[in-house]
Amino acid sequence: MNTDLSKRLEEAKRRADLNYFIYLNENAPAELEAVKRAGRCGALCGLVVAVKDNIEVAGMPITNGAPYMRRMADRTAPVVRRLIAEGAVVIGKTNMHELALGATNINPHYGPTRNPHDPSRITGGSSGGSAGAVAIGVADLGVGTDTGGSVRIPAALCGVVGYKPPYGKIPTEGVLPLAQSLDHVGFITRTVKELVHILSAAGWGPAELPQMKRFRFAVLMGVAENTKHVDKAFWKAVSVLESIGGIRDEVFIDAGKYGAARAAILLSEAAANYYHYLRSAAEHMGRDVAALLSAGAALPAVAYITAKRVKEEATRFFESLFKKYDVVVTPTTAAEALAIEEAGKLDVRGRLLAYTELFNLTGHPAISVPAPASDLPVGLQIAARDEDVLLSIAKAYEEAL
Amino acid sequence: MNTDLSKRLEEAKRRADLNYFIYLNENAPAELEAVKRAGRCGALCGLVVAVKDNIEVAGMPITNGAPYMRRMADRTAPVVRRLIAEGAVVIGKTNMHELALGATNINPHYGPTRNPHDPSRITGGSSGGSAGAVAIGVADLGVGTDTGGSVRIPAALCGVVGYKPPYGKIPTEGVLPLAQSLDHVGFITRTVKELVHILSAAGWGPAELPQMKRFRFAVLMGVAENTKHVDKAFWKAVSVLESIGGIRDEVFIDAGKYGAARAAILLSEAAANYYHYLRSAAEHMGRDVAALLSAGAALPAVAYITAKRVKEEATRFFESLFKKYDVVVTPTTAAEALAIEEAGKLDVRGRLLAYTELFNLTGHPAISVPAPASDLPVGLQIAARDEDVLLSIAKAYEEAL
Repeated sequence: MNTDLSKRLEEAKRRADLNYFIYLNENAPAELEAVKRAGRCGALCGLVVAVKDNIEVAGMPITNGAPYMRRMADRTAPVVRRLIAEGAVVIGKTNMHELALGATNINPHYGPTRNPHDPSRITGGSSGGSAGAVAIGVADLGVGTDTGGSVRIPAALCGVVGYKPPYGKIPTEGVLPLAQSLDHVGFITRTVKELVHILSAAGWGPAELPQMKRFRFAVLMGVAENTKHVDKAFWKAVSVLESIGGIRDEVFIDAGKYGAARAAILLSEAAANYYHYLRSAAEHMGRDVAALLSAGAALPAVAYITAKRVKEEATRFFESLFKKYDVVVTPTTAAEALAIEEAGKLDVRGRLLAYTELFNLTGHPAISVPAPASDLPVGLQIAARDEDVLLSIAKAYEEAL
Repeated sequence: MNTDLSKRLEEAKRRADLNYFIYLNENAPAELEAVKRAGRCGALCGLVVAVKDNIEVAGMPITNGAPYMRRMADRTAPVVRRLIAEGAVVIGKTNMHELALGATNINPHYGPTRNPHDPSRITGGSSGGSAGAVAIGVADLGVGTDTGGSVRIPAALCGVVGYKPPYGKIPTEGVLPLAQSLDHVGFITRTVKELVHILSAAGWGPAELPQMKRFRFAVLMGVAENTKHVDKAFWKAVSVLESIGGIRDEVFIDAGKYGAARAAILLSEAAANYYHYLRSAAEHMGRDVAALLSAGAALPAVAYITAKRVKEEATRFFESLFKKYDVVVTPTTAAEALAIEEAGKLDVRGRLLAYTELFNLTGHPAISVPAPASDLPVGLQIAARDEDVLLSIAKAYEEAL
């Protein structure tokens, strides 16, 4: 593990055009040195972590991607504290979609985070800065949040690994809420192997993964219209799963209903969380964010309550699927990274969120791993009921690639 | 225990002017005979039960107090099944506030349930038929539901005992929902002693109650404006509590905020539950019910979500109170039974619901027991964190009266 933190900081500055960081921690090298000298460097000694700027780290500013919310944080979120306790060091706070309310990561205040594979394209979001920082090697681990796919989407579009653990597993204390019923903390790494190591070292994962010589998996169909580029890479990835013992099935699902419910819950809870800013700071907000919050504020309670019932129904439906299949798979996104210039005119939800948001609704763990693609990266999403089964299959897939 | 069921049925018919029953079970005597002959009559053998008409009993019609919802039930709610399994017999389905959405029990379809102490006055509701049937001796046990006080209020106004167990304790399966976050199943009896016996026999209560020689209690202040009649009886009841070892304190609380939150949750969830009927059957509804459902349908999701947060805050506040006090007490209602003619013009919430609804919001167990009053009955409400402590104090109070 490269612990030359000064070089990492230099690299982050050299690539400032990518807009990955809102704040860089110039003290990081000294902090690591002090911990090492005190002999308190644990299982993650020197791990370089990029923390999304909706998560509190004491002594650093926090903005939530919104300058009108900027303040100094005086505590560190437990999820980050756990990593630091094992010797990890925070290199900075990363750029994000404003309020985490969007999937393009085109932030009007801190600039669009640019795709490392083509800077004219989006990273996806809302944890785009964390994903980009991992993709270009400035960070080993990106900590992000995922309310509809915000960890998995930028991981997929940037060609890295994004993991959303089961709902409620990682504490959300010290993490600014977007929509509490759907919010997850998640992680971005370059490989599944590193991810598993980090989870274990932090006490969030299994010491040993189960061996899955044979497993049953379902491809979810009828959810979204994939681009040709995504489709090609996805089915190659499916072949890889078959080559490592996967027995394939295909299942058509009524995803439209689930997506609408996810959106109603998201917008209602976001509007409740940011009602004050909608009234006091709407003119400072990106137009997309102000429009979504206004739409949320106008939603009736009956729609929200009905959506929460669909959420329960979706969870029961996937629970029944997971009795038949060890994992279900989809592309992570239906499209590859959109051009920054065009993203505002496109149906972002269908292109980026349709597959990932399913597992925010149900709370099941889901991971995005790179699918075999030339040119722009494509993600394979794997979801399961059992976290260990999920990680085991993702790791075997990665090894087979 | 009087098991002469034929006489009870006759009495119920003789008092038909009180409008307590929507359906009488003429088979009750034969059913009890059959169970006895089969030697399957358990700990509650011959207990006569009056079931609110929003709870399913197989083979009997169910209306929810609304003729447009009338149908035959083909299953029996587990709460009733448990009682029948111990030898209890259902004498009939009782009149209620339409959809349980109101506290006066003035039902435009099945008539107002009339107070046994003065037939020109209300019983209160929405479980008014069950309370009345117990008060006149037709039933030994009334089974009801309580979303804002619907068991405790009619018990108080009719001079009997009404108990709302902790949220979630008694299964609500087979019970038509009004507002799931607040709905409780509850029980009405003539005495606390009988109540404790029934709870134990059905497996819902302690075999033995703790002895409370000394206990701390708080009178909640600033919640509502009591009538003189209520105030006099209430403070007499407080003296009785002191006489049995109670050490009194007084606590002012911000009940207005809690009441508003309870109302927002109630109306939103009720509108979601009855949206179909509001669209298809509004012209058949009582005007009060149609107006409340319409108000609920117009509430924004933000108001509902905010109210749910106040619910959590209220629960934390009362949890902290219960660290200092074994029980808290209030009058059950701020006013005695209203005249049926006038009830429509009055602020029913302030007069009837202000004290009881607090414990639907927090989910804590609460009981109404008769306070020493001449003329119209008055209820003393006792709430606690611990159900056994609550029942023990209520029982000691009853014995001291």
